[in-house]
Amino acid sequence: MINRGVHVLLRAEGREYFAVAGEGKLHTDLGIVDLEAVAGKGWGDAVTSHNGHAFTIIRPRAPDLFRHLKRTGAPMMPKDIGAIIAYTGLCPDDVVLDAGTGSGVLAAYLGTIARKVISYEASEAFAANARRNMERAGIGNVEVRCGDIVAAVGSAELSAEGPFDVVTLDLQDAAKVVPGAFLLLRPGGFLAAYSPFFEQATEVRSAVETEGFAEATTFVINEHELEVSKRGTRPSTRVGHTGFITIARK
Amino acid sequence: MINRGVHVLLRAEGREYFAVAGEGKLHTDLGIVDLEAVAGKGWGDAVTSHNGHAFTIIRPRAPDLFRHLKRTGAPMMPKDIGAIIAYTGLCPDDVVLDAGTGSGVLAAYLGTIARKVISYEASEAFAANARRNMERAGIGNVEVRCGDIVAAVGSAELSAEGPFDVVTLDLQDAAKVVPGAFLLLRPGGFLAAYSPFFEQATEVRSAVETEGFAEATTFVINEHELEVSKRGTRPSTRVGHTGFITIARK
Amino acid sequence: MINRGVHVLLRAEGREYFAVAGEGKLHTDLGIVDLEAVAGKGWGDAVTSHNGHAFTIIRPRAPDLFRHLKRTGAPMMPKDIGAIIAYTGLCPDDVVLDAGTGSGVLAAYLGTIARKVISYEASEAFAANARRNMERAGIGNVEVRCGDIVAAVGSAELSAEGPFDVVTLDLQDAAKVVPGAFLLLRPGGFLAAYSPFFEQATEVRSAVETEGFAEATTFVINEHELEVSKRGTRPSTRVGHTGFITIARK
Amino acid sequence: MINRGVHVLLRAEGREYFAVAGEGKLHTDLGIVDLEAVAGKGWGDAVTSHNGHAFTIIRPRAPDLFRHLKRTGAPMMPKDIGAIIAYTGLCPDDVVLDAGTGSGVLAAYLGTIARKVISYEASEAFAANARRNMERAGIGNVEVRCGDIVAAVGSAELSAEGPFDVVTLDLQDAAKVVPGAFLLLRPGGFLAAYSPFFEQATEVRSAVETEGFAEATTFVINEHELEVSKRGTRPSTRVGHTGFITIARK
Repeated sequence: MINRGVHVLLRAEGREYFAVAGEGKLHTDLGIVDLEAVAGKGWGDAVTSHNGHAFTIIRPRAPDLFRHLKRTGAPMMPKDIGAIIAYTGLCPDDVVLDAGTGSGVLAAYLGTIARKVISYEASEAFAANARRNMERAGIGNVEVRCGDIVAAVGSAELSAEGPFDVVTLDLQDAAKVVPGAFLLLRPGGFLAAYSPFFEQATEVRSAVETEGFAEATTFVINEHELEVSKRGTRPSTRVGHTGFITIARK
Repeated sequence: MINRGVHVLLRAEGREYFAVAGEGKLHTDLGIVDLEAVAGKGWGDAVTSHNGHAFTIIRPRAPDLFRHLKRTGAPMMPKDIGAIIAYTGLCPDDVVLDAGTGSGVLAAYLGTIARKVISYEASEAFAANARRNMERAGIGNVEVRCGDIVAAVGSAELSAEGPFDVVTLDLQDAAKVVPGAFLLLRPGGFLAAYSPFFEQATEVRSAVETEGFAEATTFVINEHELEVSKRGTRPSTRVGHTGFITIARK
Repeated sequence: MINRGVHVLLRAEGREYFAVAGEGKLHTDLGIVDLEAVAGKGWGDAVTSHNGHAFTIIRPRAPDLFRHLKRTGAPMMPKDIGAIIAYTGLCPDDVVLDAGTGSGVLAAYLGTIARKVISYEASEAFAANARRNMERAGIGNVEVRCGDIVAAVGSAELSAEGPFDVVTLDLQDAAKVVPGAFLLLRPGGFLAAYSPFFEQATEVRSAVETEGFAEATTFVINEHELEVSKRGTRPSTRVGHTGFITIARK
Repeated sequence: MINRGVHVLLRAEGREYFAVAGEGKLHTDLGIVDLEAVAGKGWGDAVTSHNGHAFTIIRPRAPDLFRHLKRTGAPMMPKDIGAIIAYTGLCPDDVVLDAGTGSGVLAAYLGTIARKVISYEASEAFAANARRNMERAGIGNVEVRCGDIVAAVGSAELSAEGPFDVVTLDLQDAAKVVPGAFLLLRPGGFLAAYSPFFEQATEVRSAVETEGFAEATTFVINEHELEVSKRGTRPSTRVGHTGFITIARK
C-alpha cells in the first residue's frame, strides 16, 4: 500500500509525471489527478483523472530521475553512469563523495544504491536546484553542499566524514581534487572522474599516476542504438561523444 | 574489525587473492598467509606472509568478482553490466530474476546491489560452479537454480516469488522467455536481455514488441580504452563487440 | 594556362563557386566575377569581382564534387567512397558499372579516377540531375543511363560493354543485381555494394555467397572527427551510421 | 594478351602468388608453374602447375599490394588509405609527395592512381625494400628516395619538382614537414598526415593551423566488420585503432 508522502510516477498514454501521494492535485495534459486518491493504492494500480484518463501508479526507478529531474546543464548519460557504477562496484554499504553536482542526476543515481552521498556544487543556484530535485524524487540520502570541493577535499571536516568507498568527480578542476580524494578513500576504494575533453582526461590521469593509486584506466563508452523500423534495422545515427571516464583504485 | 568468515581480498605487489578470514592458510606466489591473522584486523591493515611480503586487506567490491570468480565461459563485461544496472535502475529493494547464470558474474554483480536474485542455469555443472562462486565471494542473496527457465517462467512457483522488479536474460532462448517475464514483472519494472548475435537481438526485440512493453530500446555499448604510454596516447586497440542489449519496461 | 570551357573553383573568404572559364558572369555574395577574365590565367592566380573581392582560381578536385553537386537525396559520404576505392583498388584503366546513380556523387568520384563509368538510375528526374552535375563538374567519362539495372545487367548490350573491372551498387535491389554483376565482372574484379540497412546488407552478402565470388567481406566505416577548440579536444558528436559496405571479388 | 614482363596474380584454391609473365618458374604449395606459359594468355585464363593444379591468371589490383608487398613494419590499412584518397580527391593527373615510405603500401596505392609519386624514407634498408616492392608490383611511377624529408622539404631541388597536388605524411616528425609542404602544394592541393598517437595528431593539426591552410579536419576511421557465421551475425571483435588522419587544404 502506498502511503502519503511517497513519490510516485503516474503514467498514461505515453506521458509520465512525478508526484507525491496525498499532496494536492496534479494538472496534466490528460486532466487533473487527485493525488489524495493515490494514497492507499498499490503499485501498478490505476487512478483516473477528472476527465477519465486512467494513470498507472508506478514506483519510480533511477532512469526516471534522468528524465524528470530539472536540468541546469547537460546531465551525465546512463551509459556513463552505468560504467561508473560497475567499475567502482557501487553497493548499498557505500559512502560516496561526489562533485560537482550539477543537476544532480549522477548523485541521485548513486543515492538510489549507496548508503550516503555527499555532493559538492560550486554554484548556489545549481545546488538549490539539485536539492529540489532530490526532494521531488524522494531521495533522502544525498546531501548537496554548496562549496569549493578543491578546498573541502583537504579539510578536517570532510576527513572526519570518511573514509569514502567511492569518489566521483565531474568538474573542470577534477585533477586538483585527486590528491585529496586519494587520502579520503578507503584502501580498495575507487575514484571515478568524468572529463568531456581529452586534455582534462589526461590531466586527471596524470594526477592519478602521481598519487600512487594501485591501478587506473581511462576509457570512453559509446552507445549505438539499433534503430528498428519498417524500412529495416540499422545502427542509430544519434550517437555521440560525451566524456572520458577515468577509474582509479586506491 | 574483520570477523572470522568474512571474505577479504589480499593485495600485494600487483597480485590479488580472495580468501576468508580465519579459514586456514593461503598459498600465494609471495609466500603463505595465515588467514587466522586476518581476523581481528581492520580494512586496509596489512598481514605478512611467512617470507615477509606485506598484503593489504581489502574489502572486496564487485569488480573483484569479475576478476576472481571461476569462469565456465566468457562472462558479461562490466561495460554491459553497468548499462544493465543503469538502464533498469537496479536498487537495494529489488527482487531480480536472472537466466542463464553461466559463471554467475552478472548474478553476483546484481546480488551486490539488489535484495534478492534468483538465477536459472540449464547446466548442472555451470550451476554448481556458480554456486561455489557465490560462496567464495560471500554473496548470500543470489540463489542459483538448475533448471529450464523457458518452462519455469510460466510456473506457479516462480509466479508466487514475484513480482520481480528486474528480469535479466543472457541465454540463446531469451525471446522464448519474454512473454513469461512480462507477466512476472511489476508494472514499471525492467527486462534486460543480452544477445551476442544480431539475429537473437531482433528476435528478443520482436518478442518485446509483441508483449506490449511500454517502451523498448536495443543498443550496443562499446568501450574504447585510452592507452597512455611513453610513446603517446591513443585509443586502445583491444576493443571489441560483446553483445546487443535490449531494455524493455513494463 | 586555363582555357575557355575548363571548370574552375573560385574561392574567396570562405566561399566557393564552381564555374566555367570564359562563360559569362558569375553572381556571388562577394560581387560579380567576369568569367572571361578567368580564361588565360593559371591555377592559383586571382581574379577580382566587380566590387574588389579577390577570388583564387582553384583546380576542382573530387571533394569539391561532394560539396557542389546538386543533390536529389543523401549522397554517399567520402569515408564510404574512399573505402570502396581502396578495397576495389580503383585505377585509371578501369571500366566501372555503377547503379543507382542518385545525385551522382559516387559516379563522379569514380569518374575522376577510372577510364569509363556507366551509371544506371531508375528515375528520369534523378538521371537528368546527375547528367547536369557531370556537365557542371566537367566529368566527361561518366555516362548516366536512365533504366532498370536489374533488367539491364542480364542484357547482351551491357555484356558487350564489359568485362567490367568494378561494379558499384547503391540501390534497394542490390541483391538482385549480384548474379548479373558476377557475369559482367572480369576475374579478379570487384563488386562493392552499399546498404543503409542491415537486412539489405545480409541479402547482398547472401547473394554474393551464392554466386561463388572468391572472397567477400561486409563492414561499416565510422568516422570520428577530432573537435579542436579553445575549450579542449574531443571526439566530435557529429558522427553517425551511413551504410554497410559489402566488397566481393570475382 | 599478357606480354612477357607483365605482373600477374596467380590464384588457385585460396592461394595467391605475385609473378612476372615469362620469367622462369614459380614454386608454390600447389606445384611448380612455368611462367613462360603465362605469357600469351589472357586475363582470367588458367595455367596449370606441374602436378595439375589450375591457377587463374588475375590482373593485380591495389588490394593485392596490401597483401603481397614485403613489410618492414605495420603498413597503413586500406580503410585509412581510402579516406586519404577520397578526402584529397587523388586523380590520375596528380603529382604526389609522400614520406615516410615504410613498406611502401601507401605509396604503391597512390602510384596506382596518380601520375607520379615521390616518396622519402629515412632508413636505407626500408627504402631498398620499398623499391623492391614497387618492382615486384610493376609500379613504375613511384620513386623511393632515401633521405630526410624535414631537410628535403625546404630544398630547391624538391621545389623544382613541384608544385605537388597532394602531400602524404606518415612519420613521427610530420609536424616539422608541414611548413615546407604548404609551400610545395598547389593552391587547392591537399595535405594528408597520418598519426598513430593523439599527441602527434594535435602537433600536426597545430602546425596546419599556423601555416594558414584554407581548411583542416582531423579524424579517425574505424572499420567494423560484420561477422557472418552459422551461429549468427555480429560486429567483428577484430577492430582497432590505427591512427588519426589530418586533412588540410591549401
